[in-house]
Amino acid sequence: MVIESDGFDRLKIAQQEAIFHTANGYIGVRNCPEEGVQYRSQSIRGAYINAFYDTEPIRYAEKLHGFPDTAEHMVNVTDVQSIALYAGNERFSPSGGLLGHTRVLDMENGLAIRSISWRTSAGNTIALCIKRMASFVMKNLFLLEFCITSLDYSGGMTVVSSQDGNVKSFSDPDDPRVPSNGDRRLITERLRAVEDSTIMQSKTVNTELTMASAVRHVCTLHSRIDHKLASNRADTVISIQIEPGQTAVIQKFCIFTDGRRFDDPAGAALKLLDEAVRYGAAYWYKKQQELLDGFWRHSRIVIEGDEAAQRLMDFNVYQLLQSAGSDRLSNIPAKGLSGEGYEGHYFWDTEIYMFPFFLLTDRKTARSLLSYRYHILDEARRHARDMGHQKGALYPWRTIAGRECSSYYPSGSAQYHINGDVAHSVLSYYAVTNDMDYLAEEGAEILFETARLWLDVGHYGSDGRFRIDCVTGPDEYTCIVNNNFYTNSCARENLFGAVSAYCLLCGGGMENEVRRLVAGDEIEAFKHAAERMYLPYDDELGIIAQDDSFLQKARWDISSIPPGDFPLLLNYHPLYINRHQICKQADTVLAAWLFDEDMDDAVIERTFDYYEPITTHDSSLSACVFSIVASRLGRLERAYDYFKKAVATDMEDIQGNTKHGLHIANMGGAWLAVTAGFAGLRIRENGLHFRPRCPKNWKSFAFKLQYRESEFQITINTNTAVFILLSGPPVPIFISGNAYYLKDELTVEVSGGHA
Amino acid sequence: MVIESDGFDRLKIAQQEAIFHTANGYIGVRNCPEEGVQYRSQSIRGAYINAFYDTEPIRYAEKLHGFPDTAEHMVNVTDVQSIALYAGNERFSPSGGLLGHTRVLDMENGLAIRSISWRTSAGNTIALCIKRMASFVMKNLFLLEFCITSLDYSGGMTVVSSQDGNVKSFSDPDDPRVPSNGDRRLITERLRAVEDSTIMQSKTVNTELTMASAVRHVCTLHSRIDHKLASNRADTVISIQIEPGQTAVIQKFCIFTDGRRFDDPAGAALKLLDEAVRYGAAYWYKKQQELLDGFWRHSRIVIEGDEAAQRLMDFNVYQLLQSAGSDRLSNIPAKGLSGEGYEGHYFWDTEIYMFPFFLLTDRKTARSLLSYRYHILDEARRHARDMGHQKGALYPWRTIAGRECSSYYPSGSAQYHINGDVAHSVLSYYAVTNDMDYLAEEGAEILFETARLWLDVGHYGSDGRFRIDCVTGPDEYTCIVNNNFYTNSCARENLFGAVSAYCLLCGGGMENEVRRLVAGDEIEAFKHAAERMYLPYDDELGIIAQDDSFLQKARWDISSIPPGDFPLLLNYHPLYINRHQICKQADTVLAAWLFDEDMDDAVIERTFDYYEPITTHDSSLSACVFSIVASRLGRLERAYDYFKKAVATDMEDIQGNTKHGLHIANMGGAWLAVTAGFAGLRIRENGLHFRPRCPKNWKSFAFKLQYRESEFQITINTNTAVFILLSGPPVPIFISGNAYYLKDELTVEVSGGHA
Repeated sequence: MVIESDGFDRLKIAQQEAIFHTANGYIGVRNCPEEGVQYRSQSIRGAYINAFYDTEPIRYAEKLHGFPDTAEHMVNVTDVQSIALYAGNERFSPSGGLLGHTRVLDMENGLAIRSISWRTSAGNTIALCIKRMASFVMKNLFLLEFCITSLDYSGGMTVVSSQDGNVKSFSDPDDPRVPSNGDRRLITERLRAVEDSTIMQSKTVNTELTMASAVRHVCTLHSRIDHKLASNRADTVISIQIEPGQTAVIQKFCIFTDGRRFDDPAGAALKLLDEAVRYGAAYWYKKQQELLDGFWRHSRIVIEGDEAAQRLMDFNVYQLLQSAGSDRLSNIPAKGLSGEGYEGHYFWDTEIYMFPFFLLTDRKTARSLLSYRYHILDEARRHARDMGHQKGALYPWRTIAGRECSSYYPSGSAQYHINGDVAHSVLSYYAVTNDMDYLAEEGAEILFETARLWLDVGHYGSDGRFRIDCVTGPDEYTCIVNNNFYTNSCARENLFGAVSAYCLLCGGGMENEVRRLVAGDEIEAFKHAAERMYLPYDDELGIIAQDDSFLQKARWDISSIPPGDFPLLLNYHPLYINRHQICKQADTVLAAWLFDEDMDDAVIERTFDYYEPITTHDSSLSACVFSIVASRLGRLERAYDYFKKAVATDMEDIQGNTKHGLHIANMGGAWLAVTAGFAGLRIRENGLHFRPRCPKNWKSFAFKLQYRESEFQITINTNTAVFILLSGPPVPIFISGNAYYLKDELTVEVSGGHA
Repeated sequence: MVIESDGFDRLKIAQQEAIFHTANGYIGVRNCPEEGVQYRSQSIRGAYINAFYDTEPIRYAEKLHGFPDTAEHMVNVTDVQSIALYAGNERFSPSGGLLGHTRVLDMENGLAIRSISWRTSAGNTIALCIKRMASFVMKNLFLLEFCITSLDYSGGMTVVSSQDGNVKSFSDPDDPRVPSNGDRRLITERLRAVEDSTIMQSKTVNTELTMASAVRHVCTLHSRIDHKLASNRADTVISIQIEPGQTAVIQKFCIFTDGRRFDDPAGAALKLLDEAVRYGAAYWYKKQQELLDGFWRHSRIVIEGDEAAQRLMDFNVYQLLQSAGSDRLSNIPAKGLSGEGYEGHYFWDTEIYMFPFFLLTDRKTARSLLSYRYHILDEARRHARDMGHQKGALYPWRTIAGRECSSYYPSGSAQYHINGDVAHSVLSYYAVTNDMDYLAEEGAEILFETARLWLDVGHYGSDGRFRIDCVTGPDEYTCIVNNNFYTNSCARENLFGAVSAYCLLCGGGMENEVRRLVAGDEIEAFKHAAERMYLPYDDELGIIAQDDSFLQKARWDISSIPPGDFPLLLNYHPLYINRHQICKQADTVLAAWLFDEDMDDAVIERTFDYYEPITTHDSSLSACVFSIVASRLGRLERAYDYFKKAVATDMEDIQGNTKHGLHIANMGGAWLAVTAGFAGLRIRENGLHFRPRCPKNWKSFAFKLQYRESEFQITINTNTAVFILLSGPPVPIFISGNAYYLKDELTVEVSGGHA
């Protein structure tokens, strides 16, 4: 279970920093060359703490009412990854004599390893092996182990290992997908050496959030360790005497803490550092491996007959683990903790693309992700008021601590479907867990408040149907439309879900509690609107209409667009794009996955066939959904092509911006392409449903799911699907529409797809 | 013909600065208290040169492709209006002993006069009379005459008269209608005294445009004049000895020149200053009066029986004269030269609201306004490319020198109807003048290039109708819609107009010339699209549909909105507004005026009745149009109410922002409410059409129009309309649909309207 990369390509440094980054949901450190880079543009040096953010005013040339005035940005925190190495007076640099350079992401042991063979100008050879670990066990610990092996060098070496508070955010003013200015957001407040540790306390400029980093070096073969402290930088200078055959090991223990989680971040960091060093690196390596052993046991998709797919799938699933915050404060940034793309914001990505993976394999994290949404419910209420609504809550399109951070509302705040997406995850959670306590404590309130908003944003047309005008659906190439099918569908589910939650809680003897949250006539109003929800459909074409006007717009033949013009948003004015029947990503096709329960197969098929040729997949959230629905239609080859595109997105830099961070939602999407796609998994109120199929070039694939109090395994090959109950009581499952009761093992025949 | 205002109300200083400003289409000087104000916020000190602008980068929090990166701003130029007056050591200030304060705008003599009676702390009384004139004859000349009359004071007085280069632009970050930052845009390059003049040369920060101001004082009763020069300020200190009964006169001759009009602005300013002083103030006053005599003779609307309306109408028409640039470089800023609202930009305001006044009363200025559009045609071509169009030209929504300066495209660049508006003015010009040379030299090229754009922005729907998607019509409370009736109507006129121009020029023997501009098959394509233009109509309601979706949106009862919430754009998020059937301004009702030739009366009536109660008139461009169409429907009382609102907009500060400058387009609209409204004037290909009616409370009203080579007068009372040919050959006119040939005098009966 490794990802490997040979050679040192200057043009790919930033991309590799993201791919080989190490994170644990709390801290993330890009895998930047320890020795630095020759040109700043080659590298995006960064380390992040999930949900640790600064703010800055959003400046508009023309500011209209309700535009957010403050944006949150994930902060690039103290740089602990810089290590300069000298053999005598010669400083190591890849631009010197590089004999070999390999990177490995070891996903069984949770390590990123960089191996270097260096020929000095004097002709000596020195091998470097640099291991990095963001501990899943002690989430504040980042460990960097720097090993120097002399093959034939004899003499003094110097290692200068830094802790640097002079960090800036990444920016590119011409790319709307990353921050537009790279201001310093972190100020060093205090830097000191405490015994053999250096501890730096910093504060964000505007939010005045405190963080601390504490660093201690544990070394072999060293003659002395000195700390040189400047105002915002500590250099630890380690002098080594080495002989051929010897290896000097420098273990750099780095602890990150922050004021959102600790009252005294600096004190806590020192305490944790003591603990980390006391147990020693070997202990943490072992704990890391043990934890990952458990992770892979429950969460791995095992693919037989397609090694490349197996490796990529492992990489995808591993990144989900690395990215997910698991306290109520944090969630999953669009780029995980691998880069500053989308400024560390949380989007609907979590609920629609990543949440199902956690829900079905790691319920505790799933619960925490949901609790984050409950935690920011008050902010969502405030946001609804800003948008003109007197009641209900509207989740921010992008945020860290809860405030809407979208400065361009047509493809930002206008995406009201975020409310339905959150509601969808609440309802899925309840469907899988039957957790009434969650519903009573948090879930129902979210459902009621989001449902309320739909009543205010929509209205009844003259035909009595409930309409929702002036919103943007998932397809960001078609902004501000009326009756977006996806939006109306998820609003409908949201409204019905609120009604269900009300009935469940009343039925469960919590009538008094629930009536504090919602009135009976409101529930009637939810039901009334849901039942009359207008879902646009084109009779002539026999397809779902993306919205009221999409199908009347001009066609734009994708094959006529020069390849250099993609993604279109970087090359065409939004009005020009909006004017055409062209999709950035799945929209009706997404609805045809998430809301397919009552959909006619033929409608799904015609819908897929209509929208597929007009979708550019300029969003990384698209291919996986097309894969899922292609599977649903039995088009396994097409499904496999889309799956391959999704699963390889970052390794092959398909979107061209992996350097800004990994496309984590797409990675959840790749997991879904297998489970919801090939295996046909749907979470329904009455249980989990499957339509198992196996891609032709796979011998088989298998994965495990947790449902209610049980866990079971599904193994699918081209002929059969085998379901094995691994633990817990028997569970009801549905296979191709037939109900089963899984007690120990169940084998069904698998129908082949058509091409 | 005077506007008068008594008293000194601190809260109205800024509003009065606009109302009593003096301008001549080239320079405009707000009527700010010469002595300064106590609190900066009370006053918006400013002077402007039409089309003299600086640029600054537009910063977007999220910048998408094609967003303009640079905005132009009219520059607040050198301040020459500061004059401090000392009686002995006591400085005059209105916060001292103010016995009387009167302002007069004398529209016959072209002067703004401020009269002050000052009681000094020693108990003496001094009368001040301050006259200002922006010369219509020598457009570079601004003359400020400061007269001090001692009633009972005897002794020394000092006048410190300044020329100040330390000027900033006005700004309010929370109001999208004015600039958001008040940076300094003008740097003093050189300041010197040349004999008894002071001359300052300045440069804009980014455009590096040069301007010069030259000042000389001509005084009586003075003992000495000293110039004190600082780096960017010249104070001229005039010492006076005065006795009771004496008057000291200080004539401050100020010349403004700029590098867009003069190769050597400073040299030219000094030369012009010499000339101005040599002829003397009395000469310029006389010339001003003579010019205005001619202006009023041709341009006045004479109202019998309604003095208030007469005074307001005169004020409106006078402001049109003050505001219009008459070189190819300049046009009419939204606020004229009376303030920095809308940053001195030119909008469609000119073509639709102000151009008809000039076209029918001052053809030379009309031609110049049209030539401005030809002058920026290349910029419009560039803008079309930015918006994704490979051919044609798209006029910028707001601009000074031609580049699109709209930083918020939903109610900016999306207003493609600007192309149709410009085409409409070209076609009107030809209809009135029959000027083939203009068509051949400039007009046809504009028509072809704008028509081309419609072919690219629109497309044929499956029903064969030509559709235009994703544009914003005039109503800025309903942004980015499909098939806005107004837009499609003016596109249709634009396309047909291009065909007509082609035929006219070919018929006029200019086949070769015209074929260099347009191909025959393009003309066919224009005709094809125009004939098939989709104009949305609601069969059930029997009304024009504002666009494809407007009538399906939620209603929002205007009476339920708290009065403090208007204008809605300052109090609701645009999406919330867009989601409702609510209009900022006339849109279909505007179409029902401009494109009523083939419209059924009943449709116009039902349309008016439907849209009237849902229009907030938050735009000052609205009331006049409702007045015109109410007249068309014979609803004279309603028409008169709207007219009254329009004509009093600034005098009564109805929009609440007169302090930012006068609503000049509305003033053109007030003229139209009388001519196109009460008199029912329409410019059609075959001649001028009328449907004369007289408001009940008016005895009569009369105005003159120039058509072809003739001028004629129309006098309308409640019974008859009398048309008198004043000069030129006989002209065809149409009255209530009947064709006449006006040879000398023609009297027709007038039908009354219903209430």
